[in-house]
Amino acid sequence: MTTYWCEYAVVAGTTVASGVAVEITGGLITSVAVQTAPSSGAVRLVGLTIPGLANCHSHAFHRALRGRTQRGKGSFWTWREQMYALAATLDPDSYYRLAHAVYREMAAAGITSVGEFHYLHHAPDGSPYADANVMGTALVAAARDVGLRIALLDTCYLTAGLGEIAEGVQLRFSDGDADAWAARATALTAQSGPGVVIGGAVHSVRAVPKSGIPVVAQWAESAGVPLHVHLSEQLAENDECRAAHGCTPTELLEDAGALGELTSAVHATHLTQRDIELLGASQTTICMCPTTERDLGDGIGPARPLQEAGSPLTLGSDSHAVIDLYEEMRALELDERLASQRRGIWSAAELFAAGTASGHASLGFATAGHIAVGARADLVTLDLETTRTAGGGAALETAVFCAGSADVVQVVCDGRVIASRDDQSEIGRELTGAIEAVWAQA
Amino acid sequence: MTTYWCEYAVVAGTTVASGVAVEITGGLITSVAVQTAPSSGAVRLVGLTIPGLANCHSHAFHRALRGRTQRGKGSFWTWREQMYALAATLDPDSYYRLAHAVYREMAAAGITSVGEFHYLHHAPDGSPYADANVMGTALVAAARDVGLRIALLDTCYLTAGLGEIAEGVQLRFSDGDADAWAARATALTAQSGPGVVIGGAVHSVRAVPKSGIPVVAQWAESAGVPLHVHLSEQLAENDECRAAHGCTPTELLEDAGALGELTSAVHATHLTQRDIELLGASQTTICMCPTTERDLGDGIGPARPLQEAGSPLTLGSDSHAVIDLYEEMRALELDERLASQRRGIWSAAELFAAGTASGHASLGFATAGHIAVGARADLVTLDLETTRTAGGGAALETAVFCAGSADVVQVVCDGRVIASRDDQSEIGRELTGAIEAVWAQA
Repeated sequence: MTTYWCEYAVVAGTTVASGVAVEITGGLITSVAVQTAPSSGAVRLVGLTIPGLANCHSHAFHRALRGRTQRGKGSFWTWREQMYALAATLDPDSYYRLAHAVYREMAAAGITSVGEFHYLHHAPDGSPYADANVMGTALVAAARDVGLRIALLDTCYLTAGLGEIAEGVQLRFSDGDADAWAARATALTAQSGPGVVIGGAVHSVRAVPKSGIPVVAQWAESAGVPLHVHLSEQLAENDECRAAHGCTPTELLEDAGALGELTSAVHATHLTQRDIELLGASQTTICMCPTTERDLGDGIGPARPLQEAGSPLTLGSDSHAVIDLYEEMRALELDERLASQRRGIWSAAELFAAGTASGHASLGFATAGHIAVGARADLVTLDLETTRTAGGGAALETAVFCAGSADVVQVVCDGRVIASRDDQSEIGRELTGAIEAVWAQA
Repeated sequence: MTTYWCEYAVVAGTTVASGVAVEITGGLITSVAVQTAPSSGAVRLVGLTIPGLANCHSHAFHRALRGRTQRGKGSFWTWREQMYALAATLDPDSYYRLAHAVYREMAAAGITSVGEFHYLHHAPDGSPYADANVMGTALVAAARDVGLRIALLDTCYLTAGLGEIAEGVQLRFSDGDADAWAARATALTAQSGPGVVIGGAVHSVRAVPKSGIPVVAQWAESAGVPLHVHLSEQLAENDECRAAHGCTPTELLEDAGALGELTSAVHATHLTQRDIELLGASQTTICMCPTTERDLGDGIGPARPLQEAGSPLTLGSDSHAVIDLYEEMRALELDERLASQRRGIWSAAELFAAGTASGHASLGFATAGHIAVGARADLVTLDLETTRTAGGGAALETAVFCAGSADVVQVVCDGRVIASRDDQSEIGRELTGAIEAVWAQA
């Protein structure tokens, strides 16, 4: 048993208490007491300790694009060309090394669960590796070695667009058909275990034909695991779907039985009122990725109407233009302020729940995201006296509206210390090495 | 003479060179050589060295609001109520201590010139202090003691709204009439000197009557100093101006002779096409404050059309919801991506010029913002291997799109080291103390 004594901690969901003693046994929290004095055997955590953050939408390899895709003009689609050039270079070793560095960056930022949306399955020519799941296994190993939890969302990606066959680097993504995807994904479930969930994903209605979507949805439903899907990130997707199927992407997913409590729809930027009703009524989770949506010029999705319709909200750093879940939490509110010219669309408590408990639950880690008895023992300590946080006080608003990844002092995940501020420069060097190595192959 | 040897540096405006030797004498750069090997006497700066950043719109005391104004719902106008409660508490000593801490936060973030938009002139009951400029003098002293340059924009603030007399805390802001403002501002020019410019400001068309604006404009013009003004930040200001004067705020400023090359219009969010033409044709600088405009829900101003019409662009952290000019630079682009669903509205070079050379020039420091012979000797070194910057390489895009204030290693201003990364925790404690002290008075 380890006992931590937190100067301040967020307990009972979103309440800040002082003098919080947290006992941990076997990776779980076994006791929480507030307003205590520090006991002699306790490890003192000075600052504000929060539960771990959940990064619900990650493409780990996109981290190598940061900064490099900011040259010249373009759109989501020109950005995708650069992303494809990178995807073409990766092999199981470089994918592991890059993901390991990126997951360390996440851990140091206070993230304890990642949802990895993984579609880089096969060799560059599209043929399976000898172990057809070697790429997915590399991601699981990277997360395990760093010490954070992973929901590997094995992604079905079959077509280049609606009715277009995969080509070029997309051959690496495609299993040929949905049944072949399901067979491979089933084999990957051997990797499941403590801290590892193998879920499913439909890349998008662009990348999986209408007949394939129910196959993926039923695979996930029968396994009782999360199903994630990119939804209506760009207007072009909506236009193509209407032209091909006479309905919106949301309606197509509804028809395919792909909406529901275990499903997360990522982005959900350009929706109709009917789409919002379908997503809300089915309690489909909505994963917003505000900093990526800024970066790619996606637009601002209707998060508030979706939540009011019944959809839980989660957050992801997606393309990793920045890995800072504090910025994701506040960006959701700040971008809606720009659009609406009103403040307080979301409370700090709502944004915090999206970044923590709702997020972990959507990845299949239902007992994470709380500092409470029986919860997974995640403790992320924020320094309240940095240039960013100073003056805000021990308040949820300080974590959500002031803090950044640079303010994280120490991170405990499932009872183990997985990162501390002293690791920052070493992680920076590891990232530099991993990223330079992949571009040297391009 | 001191010689710095920069691993990489931004020279000739926006070009990144390696092995840059910079000689400094008397606060000015006297030699720049690229692709050199480090000489034995040179101080090595590892990373990417950029010229100092200019924070062209600051209300130093708003820093105490960070985090604390994020509770509940509201608008710009409810936020202003909280800001007024804070303004009511300050005295010359607490104003100095708060500004000193905030300017240290700025210095540590790589800011070497600040434009301080100062209107907290008088005692709480509106009567002048024994030294009528004791509050402005406190700000100048704070900047001098930290070591950064200040343009103190002494602000004329006379009315609560169009045609409404100042009341409550606004009594602290008002000199009674524009001539009294000019007399006091003239007395303050005794503070001018190396690194200190005393400029003028019209708070807004809400706060200065039509007859007063030309008085302030002529005061600044005859002194050859900058004139700053809040412009059309909120739609309500435009509506009131039209109702009272039958024209837009921009047109009112134009009629008053307040536009021109020495003028900076701050925010410029809600403009007509005619407004854009007037601002551009007069070469009035536009100071955007993207993170504050997010925070206050102002909206996204027409920065690109303004620049194309002829207006130089600058940036400010304004209410200090965050002090991070790197975020201000990229936020301008990212928010326009959200609005337009296109990428590359602004190049990194354009954003960088706004954050550096254009900014310093708008504050009256024309020779700052370049690493070039004859320029003021400002050198801000960014670590290229932090979790944020790693992998981007020695490129302008890394500074603009990846870096943050936490990545600053060392800051030289006018030839003197004014901040280094090792100061961060001490600055955090100074901020905490100063902010807690002012709220203890509230």
